[in-house]
Amino acid sequence: MTPEEFRAYGHQLIDWLADYRATVADRPVMAKTEPGEIGASLPSAPPIDPEPFGDVLKDLDRVVMPGLSHWQHPRFFGYFPANSLEAGVLGDIASTGLGVLGLAWQSSPAITEVEDVVLGWMRQMVGLSEAWSGVIQDTASTSTLVALITARERATNYGLSRGGLQAEQQPLVVYVSAQSHSSVDKAALLAGFGRENVRLVPCDEKYAMRPELLDAMIQEDVAKGWVPCAVVATTGTTATTAIDPVAAIAEVARRHAIWLHVDAAMAGSAMILPECRWMWAGIEGADSLVINAHKWLGAPFDCSLYYVRDPEHLVRVMSTNPSFLQTSADGRVKNLRDWGIPLGRRFRALKLWFVIREQGVSGLQARLRRDMANAKMLAGMVEATEGWHVLAPVVLQTVCVRYEAKGMSGAELDAHTKGWAEAVNRSGEAYVTPATIDGRWMVRVSVGSVTTEAEDVRAVWAVMRRFAEA
Amino acid sequence: MTPEEFRAYGHQLIDWLADYRATVADRPVMAKTEPGEIGASLPSAPPIDPEPFGDVLKDLDRVVMPGLSHWQHPRFFGYFPANSLEAGVLGDIASTGLGVLGLAWQSSPAITEVEDVVLGWMRQMVGLSEAWSGVIQDTASTSTLVALITARERATNYGLSRGGLQAEQQPLVVYVSAQSHSSVDKAALLAGFGRENVRLVPCDEKYAMRPELLDAMIQEDVAKGWVPCAVVATTGTTATTAIDPVAAIAEVARRHAIWLHVDAAMAGSAMILPECRWMWAGIEGADSLVINAHKWLGAPFDCSLYYVRDPEHLVRVMSTNPSFLQTSADGRVKNLRDWGIPLGRRFRALKLWFVIREQGVSGLQARLRRDMANAKMLAGMVEATEGWHVLAPVVLQTVCVRYEAKGMSGAELDAHTKGWAEAVNRSGEAYVTPATIDGRWMVRVSVGSVTTEAEDVRAVWAVMRRFAEA
Repeated sequence: MTPEEFRAYGHQLIDWLADYRATVADRPVMAKTEPGEIGASLPSAPPIDPEPFGDVLKDLDRVVMPGLSHWQHPRFFGYFPANSLEAGVLGDIASTGLGVLGLAWQSSPAITEVEDVVLGWMRQMVGLSEAWSGVIQDTASTSTLVALITARERATNYGLSRGGLQAEQQPLVVYVSAQSHSSVDKAALLAGFGRENVRLVPCDEKYAMRPELLDAMIQEDVAKGWVPCAVVATTGTTATTAIDPVAAIAEVARRHAIWLHVDAAMAGSAMILPECRWMWAGIEGADSLVINAHKWLGAPFDCSLYYVRDPEHLVRVMSTNPSFLQTSADGRVKNLRDWGIPLGRRFRALKLWFVIREQGVSGLQARLRRDMANAKMLAGMVEATEGWHVLAPVVLQTVCVRYEAKGMSGAELDAHTKGWAEAVNRSGEAYVTPATIDGRWMVRVSVGSVTTEAEDVRAVWAVMRRFAEA
Repeated sequence: MTPEEFRAYGHQLIDWLADYRATVADRPVMAKTEPGEIGASLPSAPPIDPEPFGDVLKDLDRVVMPGLSHWQHPRFFGYFPANSLEAGVLGDIASTGLGVLGLAWQSSPAITEVEDVVLGWMRQMVGLSEAWSGVIQDTASTSTLVALITARERATNYGLSRGGLQAEQQPLVVYVSAQSHSSVDKAALLAGFGRENVRLVPCDEKYAMRPELLDAMIQEDVAKGWVPCAVVATTGTTATTAIDPVAAIAEVARRHAIWLHVDAAMAGSAMILPECRWMWAGIEGADSLVINAHKWLGAPFDCSLYYVRDPEHLVRVMSTNPSFLQTSADGRVKNLRDWGIPLGRRFRALKLWFVIREQGVSGLQARLRRDMANAKMLAGMVEATEGWHVLAPVVLQTVCVRYEAKGMSGAELDAHTKGWAEAVNRSGEAYVTPATIDGRWMVRVSVGSVTTEAEDVRAVWAVMRRFAEA
């Protein structure tokens, strides 16, 4: 494809995307395809000869579109908001179009330096002190894995340079809560700790970790000769956006000299609101934290911000320095390959830089406040309605609900809950996420798509009532 | 930003990128900025109010452009070709613009199904049997980490579900060669094996791993009571594109029941040429392999293809199944979150799908053959010139050279080699990568940018002679 053909097809694709964004509300939120349908519509073997590119673009409508659940839809209330703001899309288009890679600072200095500046902006925006240094990872799953590996290496005084984790005589232990994200458990297992060495600290009635029980569990482990290594606290859990008490947990972590990682993947965006910063009060006592800018904030996926107090430790664990990556600038620059797992890095800072500048901090703040008010409005309507219950405090933008018809309980109620949630999703009118809390099914309504206004929240409420009360 | 504003700015950005692609050859290949210069040109605090987006786009020229080393430049001969074909750029634009996420099959079925089909196409294109299943990871660093973690879990019969790696009584051992990529060593350390349990198998005079020595080292470890776990073979090493003998290594691995991971990050692209498949003869005996479609092949970064023989094992190690990710389609669909580390996934298959269709297999083959012929041409010119040496067999598209002026050797020669390589890069006329081989510095000329023609290869040769012989 020549640059001129790219120009022509590029304009065509931009028009298609602009039309998509303008009309996304008219589509069913959830894809209606059956398993295997899309795959079966494609040739099973690759084309030997080039295809006209116009035909390729046409398949976006023919093949792709029917197979999408629309995350940018105003009635998408599933999982979490994965906003992909148009300004950020343009930043990512620039990144892909330039096709530059950050293997070393020298291999394109702007990649490193813009990332450094923008992560500094974000640090200030969420109220963190200058003691923090940040880097972009792909997802919170990866950020948390990096946190637990670096915690492991601190606890073993860099065991990786000797016999590794397998040489440790006493088992290292990781502490999480039952409300921690599944990726935390996965990270602990991938890092080699083993399930028997992952402790579930019980939560209180608001689904927040109980620091006094964390302390007791650590003491018990120490008494048995085990080595407490790390605790993961969550600011905004997945199920209910519960808020672990970071200050109290940090105090326990400090006393026992263990690593504190704070998973603020979801609620981290809200830290740009001064009135929300109580949620992670004590954060300066943590060793690492993650904020997913690709969730509520609006940078297109993937853009997970990982901050640490001690970047030298991170680099010591992650660094490689083969001859082919050495340059004369080394020693005077950051080489961000040493701040995470992958060697190659995209120019991901562009999309976040564009989003912050186009929105301004004030614009971002106004939108998040709108969403929190909409969530409160929904909670109010739910609580005021016979048979409906809000199951957890609404501190952010997620409302956990259940409809309990008279005389219905146990497995029957679970089946009903899952049934109406699936009916809502199949209708295409809105998208919600069923999940369990205290062992029973409920429905999460996660407010916060950029396009979601109060009328959309009233609409999802009407749809939920229609299917649940039927 | 409204869809209409997105349309207008999008057209402007597409024009800017088309102009960039059309004129990239006129720019100095390597950025000329000094460390800190770009960062210093940006405000240290984020904007409170929105900025006009036209100003943001202008900073692509003012701030970003001077800080880029141009990987799409016809005279970029550094590291490896990271081609970002225009068709692939358009695929990635569609992915970002749609803003859909693959958390589960249901969260956008097309993400999973197109990836499945396109990975099947690639499997056929590189001549792998139907016994392989593929998935897209970000980089080979991550793919290899996944390989070593799954190898660890096979060797311990899923130790992660019990006491983890730290509960193993006898140390697990990983075998690599001195020519393995730095990411292999890093993956072994991150997976917890420890440096003392990573063996370096010696290479032959062509820098290929010696399978009889691998066998001997394994036997020695077994005799000592250690547990051989995995071997990583490379098809196309980083320094010299050396070719490890996969068939013989697979036989050793089979005999000792250890995991064989093949790092074909670079040479994997060449497997679309039947005449190159001797390079990984015996590949069907491996357990996992990685091909970086974002290198020579031309899918925009990141697009690392990871293939395994036993996807059920991969899923058993990587899976999580919290309630909020369960859907009624489970059991009938693949959930690719269980095929790697991150939970969230972009629609990365789009860019590879677009590249294969726009180029056709025949188009991709023709370009790779052109590059291999150009590399051979360069090697011929080097060998025919007084004082110049080709240091390793040119089996692919990388030519390793050294200029040895009369009477120069040792540290003096090293300094001269690094000096002229840096002079070439600083000139902006071409970009090459200095690296070490056998403990001495040399210069890698990696041919294979899409835009690189024979005249560009003749040009880099003239520039190298000018600075080296001066």
